[in-house]
Amino acid sequence: MRISKLFGKTQREIPAEAELISHQLLLRAGMISQVATGVYSYLPLAWRVLNKIENIIRDEMNGAGGQELNLPVVQPLELWQETGRDQTMDNLFKLTDRRERPLVLGPTHEEVLTQLVIRNVQSYRDLPKLLYQIQVKFRDEARPRGGLIRAREFHMKDLYSFDVDEAGFNESYRKMQQAYTNIYDRCGLLSMMVEADSGAIGGKESHEFMLLTESGENDILYCPKGDYAANAEKAESVKEKIDGGEPLPLEEVTTPGMTSIEEVSGFLGVPPNRTLKAVFYVADGEFVFAVIRGDLDVNDIKLQRALGCYELRLATEEEVVEAGLVPGFASPVGAKGIRIVADDSVPAVNNLVGGANKPDTHIKNVNYGRDFIADIVTDITLVKAGDTCIRCGAKLESTRGIEVGHIFKLGTLYSEKLGACYVDESGESHPIIMGCYGIGLGRLMAAAVELNHDDKGIIWPLPIAPYQVYLCPLYREDTEVSEIAEKLYSDLKNGGIEVLFDDRKESPGVKFNDADLIGIPIRVTVSPRTLEKAGVEIKLRSEKDFELVPLAEVTARVKQIIEGTSSS
Amino acid sequence: MRISKLFGKTQREIPAEAELISHQLLLRAGMISQVATGVYSYLPLAWRVLNKIENIIRDEMNGAGGQELNLPVVQPLELWQETGRDQTMDNLFKLTDRRERPLVLGPTHEEVLTQLVIRNVQSYRDLPKLLYQIQVKFRDEARPRGGLIRAREFHMKDLYSFDVDEAGFNESYRKMQQAYTNIYDRCGLLSMMVEADSGAIGGKESHEFMLLTESGENDILYCPKGDYAANAEKAESVKEKIDGGEPLPLEEVTTPGMTSIEEVSGFLGVPPNRTLKAVFYVADGEFVFAVIRGDLDVNDIKLQRALGCYELRLATEEEVVEAGLVPGFASPVGAKGIRIVADDSVPAVNNLVGGANKPDTHIKNVNYGRDFIADIVTDITLVKAGDTCIRCGAKLESTRGIEVGHIFKLGTLYSEKLGACYVDESGESHPIIMGCYGIGLGRLMAAAVELNHDDKGIIWPLPIAPYQVYLCPLYREDTEVSEIAEKLYSDLKNGGIEVLFDDRKESPGVKFNDADLIGIPIRVTVSPRTLEKAGVEIKLRSEKDFELVPLAEVTARVKQIIEGTSSS
Repeated sequence: MRISKLFGKTQREIPAEAELISHQLLLRAGMISQVATGVYSYLPLAWRVLNKIENIIRDEMNGAGGQELNLPVVQPLELWQETGRDQTMDNLFKLTDRRERPLVLGPTHEEVLTQLVIRNVQSYRDLPKLLYQIQVKFRDEARPRGGLIRAREFHMKDLYSFDVDEAGFNESYRKMQQAYTNIYDRCGLLSMMVEADSGAIGGKESHEFMLLTESGENDILYCPKGDYAANAEKAESVKEKIDGGEPLPLEEVTTPGMTSIEEVSGFLGVPPNRTLKAVFYVADGEFVFAVIRGDLDVNDIKLQRALGCYELRLATEEEVVEAGLVPGFASPVGAKGIRIVADDSVPAVNNLVGGANKPDTHIKNVNYGRDFIADIVTDITLVKAGDTCIRCGAKLESTRGIEVGHIFKLGTLYSEKLGACYVDESGESHPIIMGCYGIGLGRLMAAAVELNHDDKGIIWPLPIAPYQVYLCPLYREDTEVSEIAEKLYSDLKNGGIEVLFDDRKESPGVKFNDADLIGIPIRVTVSPRTLEKAGVEIKLRSEKDFELVPLAEVTARVKQIIEGTSSS
Repeated sequence: MRISKLFGKTQREIPAEAELISHQLLLRAGMISQVATGVYSYLPLAWRVLNKIENIIRDEMNGAGGQELNLPVVQPLELWQETGRDQTMDNLFKLTDRRERPLVLGPTHEEVLTQLVIRNVQSYRDLPKLLYQIQVKFRDEARPRGGLIRAREFHMKDLYSFDVDEAGFNESYRKMQQAYTNIYDRCGLLSMMVEADSGAIGGKESHEFMLLTESGENDILYCPKGDYAANAEKAESVKEKIDGGEPLPLEEVTTPGMTSIEEVSGFLGVPPNRTLKAVFYVADGEFVFAVIRGDLDVNDIKLQRALGCYELRLATEEEVVEAGLVPGFASPVGAKGIRIVADDSVPAVNNLVGGANKPDTHIKNVNYGRDFIADIVTDITLVKAGDTCIRCGAKLESTRGIEVGHIFKLGTLYSEKLGACYVDESGESHPIIMGCYGIGLGRLMAAAVELNHDDKGIIWPLPIAPYQVYLCPLYREDTEVSEIAEKLYSDLKNGGIEVLFDDRKESPGVKFNDADLIGIPIRVTVSPRTLEKAGVEIKLRSEKDFELVPLAEVTARVKQIIEGTSSS
């Protein structure tokens, strides 16, 4: 492709609306353009990247036995009412047609595909099935951010597995884990699989695939020994039993103005892990009292999941007072008519210090079971670096990542709600066991930029670069440069190499800047100076140095670089 | 692909909701499934067909110099207000997001792409550009019909051309005409290009590509000499001047109960082409009186275009009376406060017979200009077979077709409204000249079935068939049959041939019926009987006879058939 013909222009200015570097660089490279909040056009260069990602994904899905189909964007709201997700997915785009029939724009396709499976699967002989599509999806996000990282309209590969039993399902899930790992590898991106919360998709368990970068929106906890990794939303750690001695009688103590754990702990000489921390929420309109060991913090996602609520937020001080509690000195002891959720750390310690529900007063020797009982006791701890690995006991470490894939063990959640069953060999009917496996293509493209850039621009990994070679003649008014550049363009193309040919009459500075911004992996420079040595300069975008390659060997050398990179 | 693993099942029953044969057969073959009115899922077999069509289209678009990009489905309504199409396109799906911003689902992309062109084109040096996408589109049709023929959600290739002048535009348009003809040819489908009305897309001129079939929804007029073809909506013909002699004075005649042209013409002994036909409409709420020569009929589309109205319908008898006219005897002569549109046939005849606007009375010797004047005089004639070709004077013939492509000369319609200009060499600014070129992929697939089927099922043209070969072993319990079928499957696949392998333990009848219904072009049958002769039977879906081919030659023979078909 000749740049003089290419649709899309680079720009020098950093677009004001863009915070993330991938958003800035994709805009500046003339690859994407905003149409509405979280809605983008892909210009030709970006669309080539997306297609390369798509082809790698398709190849891996087919390799794992997936069959490609296509489900519609527009879906009857009715179908979403059957699973209750018209309520639980708060980012549904809804509309009505000319006959006032309520419709939804598909944010994911469990409902539609399960309905189709019901029509086409009756017997165990029709299973297993791995069905997928690569298609545009819609989520009316409250906070679309970072350009393609969280868009409202986005391209996604979603595969769904349908199996007769757990053994079959585990095999499907294992295949997808492998396929996903292969996909990132083949895109030239190093991924980490972590345990994750399932969110609105639901189901029993899920795993996310993360690309590690400080600009990622996810905190990840992982064991340096490699046996455990999880999204902070989901991560668990060992909570040791703390011996506070034989239960003692409750005892009020005056703690003037001391509302923080640190203050109370210091004043009373009791370690934070023998105090009670109280945190107040409103869950779907209901006031909730969460208690946790004083040295720990509450993980909102875990709490929301424990409560099974749609909306969870911190309570205001007014709401705390209204609930009959004294802010800073609230206590679960004696709290009446309030829903209490206790982290499982709480029953594991004796003789805790908690609030007395009187101003400037705490009580010592609070013992779970004897002094109060929670409505729910479960793990609601936010795990941190330094906590103990549940697999091996090592200390967990933390990092940040961008989620670029999420796979879910749905179990029979959807098949039971929608009635997707198969008949086994003895004629008995069972719900089908399902899994769901998603990758956002645009997000993966943007994440690749987050991981691969410098202050001059993008550095595309070769397998997903829009073109492999940036052919850059300098001083094209020089007839020899011009003729040799044309010949190289045609030779490289004939060699099956994808070339972006900067055939413009621009200065070397402009050309090099654009080359660096767009980030084509291999730059081939022809100039009067290189021709004096009967060669060209080949420089990798990721490297500083270049090599002089004789004219006759350019195509061969470029091929060598491409093969070396893709086999590495 | 083994049929035992394939997702999608054939069905014997003809689905009640399906009228068109393509709709029936695609449902029965297990290829598509309805999700909502005019909204379908594509199962794997259909998706393969769609992908083959897509690849052919992409190849032709790239060959013509098109650059592929991707524009979003969700668009701000505001942008549609700038061109006024929020009003003129009556099939827009509208919605609002969580912040109550009004949005539209793209039915076509002139607005969004022109906006993007404004950002990326400044100079004549940036033009011409041919930009296209292959993507899902939405139109909330009043009467979705025929399955994929008129769906509300559909896949479409839309290319837009941007040129500096007419000469450049004509070259772009010519390239697209050629590319479109190539596309249908390469899909194995014979097309006819016809002149067409531009509808809601607008612009100066347009051409449709038709596949000819009686089940088509379009009437087409064409000259047997090949110099003219047009959609009946748009077709013109020569209207000869009819000499009614010197203008005579108006004369009332009694015509008791005679309200039709035939009755009046017979009773008065005046040929129908010397009578006036009156037809009444309501255009955007306004009463309209259309007059045309008695032997002709009004073309509603031409009338709507002449009036520039959004909605046009026939008036009721009550509305005619309300307008002060006498139904059956209405006259433009003396009609007051009524908008009159006259076909250009009317001024070309003298001494016409028309209504007198009194019961049971007509008037003779009506002369346009002397006795009445119309607000608009233009061509509103519905052309019929037997009318005269405007190019060569031959008699036009008629046929029916399915529109499978529509290309438009948009001129500066959108570039002026949206402000898409370029600066020429002398620094002067001009609006960009645009064209738009669309193909519906699903519709093309369904049209292919309309043209290629028999009472047993679909007969796919080889280039777009989901698979090339249906490998059909009979009596698989026979070990030899089973082993040879497996070997053939692997040999054919290794030969690069796409095989659907009927590995089920079903009766020959079931297998042959499914093979005929799904319509794979080449059937290879292995059975104990064919093995007695050390061969297989190869039968084309389109032919009755089969040939016995020795086992060792099967792959070669199949390749020969495929090459022969695709080169024919």
